[in-house]
Parts: sequence; C-alpha cells; structure tokens
Amino acid sequence: MAQNIYDNPDFFTGYSQLPRQTLGLDGAPEWPVVRAMLPELNGKRVADLGCGFGWFSRWAKAQGATQVLGLDLSRNMIDRATADTCEPGIEYRIANLDELELPASSFEMVFSSLTFHYLSDFKRLVNTVHHSLTPGGHFVFTLEHPIYMAARHPHWIADEDGRKTWPVNGYSVEGERRTDWFAKGVVKYHRTLATTLNTLIDAGFRILRVEEFAPTAEQLRLTPTLAEEMERPMILMVSAQT
Amino acid sequence: MAQNIYDNPDFFTGYSQLPRQTLGLDGAPEWPVVRAMLPELNGKRVADLGCGFGWFSRWAKAQGATQVLGLDLSRNMIDRATADTCEPGIEYRIANLDELELPASSFEMVFSSLTFHYLSDFKRLVNTVHHSLTPGGHFVFTLEHPIYMAARHPHWIADEDGRKTWPVNGYSVEGERRTDWFAKGVVKYHRTLATTLNTLIDAGFRILRVEEFAPTAEQLRLTPTLAEEMERPMILMVSAQT
Repeated sequence: MAQNIYDNPDFFTGYSQLPRQTLGLDGAPEWPVVRAMLPELNGKRVADLGCGFGWFSRWAKAQGATQVLGLDLSRNMIDRATADTCEPGIEYRIANLDELELPASSFEMVFSSLTFHYLSDFKRLVNTVHHSLTPGGHFVFTLEHPIYMAARHPHWIADEDGRKTWPVNGYSVEGERRTDWFAKGVVKYHRTLATTLNTLIDAGFRILRVEEFAPTAEQLRLTPTLAEEMERPMILMVSAQT
Repeated sequence: MAQNIYDNPDFFTGYSQLPRQTLGLDGAPEWPVVRAMLPELNGKRVADLGCGFGWFSRWAKAQGATQVLGLDLSRNMIDRATADTCEPGIEYRIANLDELELPASSFEMVFSSLTFHYLSDFKRLVNTVHHSLTPGGHFVFTLEHPIYMAARHPHWIADEDGRKTWPVNGYSVEGERRTDWFAKGVVKYHRTLATTLNTLIDAGFRILRVEEFAPTAEQLRLTPTLAEEMERPMILMVSAQT
C-alpha cells in the first residue's frame, strides 16, 4: 500500500513550495509535452489520480470537461484542493489508489501526474482505469522515469571528464526504493519501462505516445539550470487509448 | 550512412568469436525473450535486416517460412552466411539499410537483431519496413538499449557501496556515439526510447511488446557473470504490428 508521505508535515511544507505547486501547471517544465499528449477534453468526464492541489482538475474543467473527479491519498492535498476550487462540477475525494475502485465506463479520460511511482500494484490500477474508461477513452500519465529511480543512490555523479552523470544500477530489480526528499525514507516503487508499457498493453490499451522529458531550446534559454535534464530523463510520460 | 565496421579485419575476427556467432541463436542470452515475441512463421515471407552469419534466417526457414531474405552491409557476413547455408528459399544480399528499398507488401515478418543502433536514419528504415509488410504483418527487432548507449564513456563504474553501476549522460542528445569494441571508433547512433517507439507509432505500427533484457534465475544459475545484466539493460526488444 502506498505510503502517505504527503501528510507528513515536513514533507508537505517543502513540497508545497515547489514551483509546480505555487505556479500550477505552468510551473512544471514537462507541462507543454503533457498538454500535447492530451485529447480534447470538452464534454468529457475526467478523473485525476493523485490530484494534489487540484491544478489539473481545474484546468480540465476550464477546457470544458463536464465532470472532474480528483482523488488523492493525502487529506492535506484534498483539503487544499477543495479550498482552492470554486468551480462547480469538480469533486475531490481522499482515495488510496492501490485499492481504487471506479464504476465501469464512467470516464472519457483518466489523467495522473507524478503519482504512479508511489503505487505498489500498478497492474491492478491499470486494469481499474481500463474498466472505468469508455471505449476509445484516453489514459494519460506521467511518473518518475525508471532511469531516474533505479539506482540505490540516485544522485548526480561526475564522469572522468567532470560531466554530470546519473548512476543506474538494479534497473531490472523492480520494487521498493527509499529516498530522502523533503523527508527521510520516502517510499517509491521502481518498475522497468518494459513493465510499465506491457502492463498497459496487457490490460487492453493501445500505446499512443511515449515521451521522456527533456527541455526545449527555449526552456534552456529561460532556465539554464534545466540543462542537466538533458543528461538523463527524470519524467516518463505515456498516452494510451482503450 | 552506416559505417561498415564488420568488414574491418580486426573487428571481424573479434566479433566472429562471440558466443552468439559461434553458437548461433542459443549463444544469445536474450534469444528466449525474442523468440517469445515472434509470430508463427510457418508459411510466411521473412526479411532479416542485418542478418550477419544467417543464424536467424536459417532458423526462420526451419520454422516453415516460405522465403527468407537476409540483408547485411558486410561482404564478410554475407559471404559467410551464404557458405553456411544449404537450405533452399534463403537469399542473402549486401545492402545498406540506411538506403534500403523493399517492394510493397512483400513480407509477413521483418526481423532485425542488434543492427538498428548502426543506422543514421531510423525513421526512413521504419517507414520502408512498414511499406514492405502485408496488413497485420509483424516487425520484431532488438537493438542496443539507449541506457547502454547514451553516455560519453559507457563502461562500468562503482557506486559508493562498490556496486556495479552504469553511467548515463547525454540521454536526450541523440546522434552519433563512438566507442571502441574490437576496433577503435565504432560508430553507433543513440536514440531515446521515446524516439524509437514514437517512430514506429508515427509510421502506423501498433506496439505489441517492449522488453529489456535481464537474465532469468535459471540463466543466472548457469552463467553467474550475467548478474551484471540486472544492473542496467543492454538490449531493447520491440515487437510491433502494421
């Protein structure tokens, strides 16, 4: 079962100050890529798995989604999302995605941003999402890239030329990874890229697009510190269709 | 255009002594995974791109393929494949895959093993393969994994615990990589996993399976040196269908 680190006060305080929380979708450098992977949302019912402060849920509603269901394990997140939302047609609920149940054929689009690396049972979740989508429905999600997650000590090192280099080991050893990120011992679950994609295919999804975040030339000009994101991908993005 | 390193005498001598060349398909630890990704070949026309000594071409014929076309850039390879083949229905030809042309709808299965990382124009090749396949035809290939290929200095390092670790840098910088492997300055072309998959999707393929080689428990028992293949994937395997 997923660890509820987002209700740890130290974690929540640090996390809440990230640009992607204070600025919303435009604070996430991968957002233009994610947006290009999304289907038209007008008239659609949308679920947002791991909705956090509700930035995407509100954006989806503004795009014309008829109903948006935002789910998150964290009471902190759901309380803040609820407080920040005045639009009708958006419902937030506390939910553990490792035990999620959704009614059949109840959404045209299921979205998730940087959440699935916290799930211990990705296969169960994918089957649940497939069941909840209407025929032709879309599933678009991002998660930490397995290259970023695999190693026992995931931090920058230098190669013999002094170049920023990312260590990979244990790539094919799937399962729990513990890292320190705003709090000690944050628990994540590493899965290979093959497992992520084959789990979707086995559930009946067709893979529409796979992206690995790297900054554009324009992003590099505006934010030179993003250059390190060219060295190894931190975020994997997938769109699939039933 | 692809470098013809296989006709370099030093390279060819070293390469010819690899288990996958002396033992054939069973000398390649990824072969059981590749085999499981292949469609039934009985009655099918098969192309083998980068056929080398013809091990797969002959195996495909033995599975009941009606015709097999084996193509390779290297005269050494084609000469040896021709000399080693007595079965009818297998034709070998020298061909540069970066300039390949194939007749429309002429194969039910196109295969390639550890060749596409030598191609400078993968998109052109994928479109050529799609055009050459009959409706529902299969495209199954292996290539060096981008995790394995990306870094400027691709060799084992140790992490702070002394664990075998693979360096990744320049992952999102696609293009030429030069390494020393049986000869100095072997030229390969790095592409991200996203580019490989999206190129297939854009050409009209449906992704059926993605695999990243890791040894099984039984392989580790028989060949303990394969343990390092758990640390980072060396081989990416894809099956797709028109």
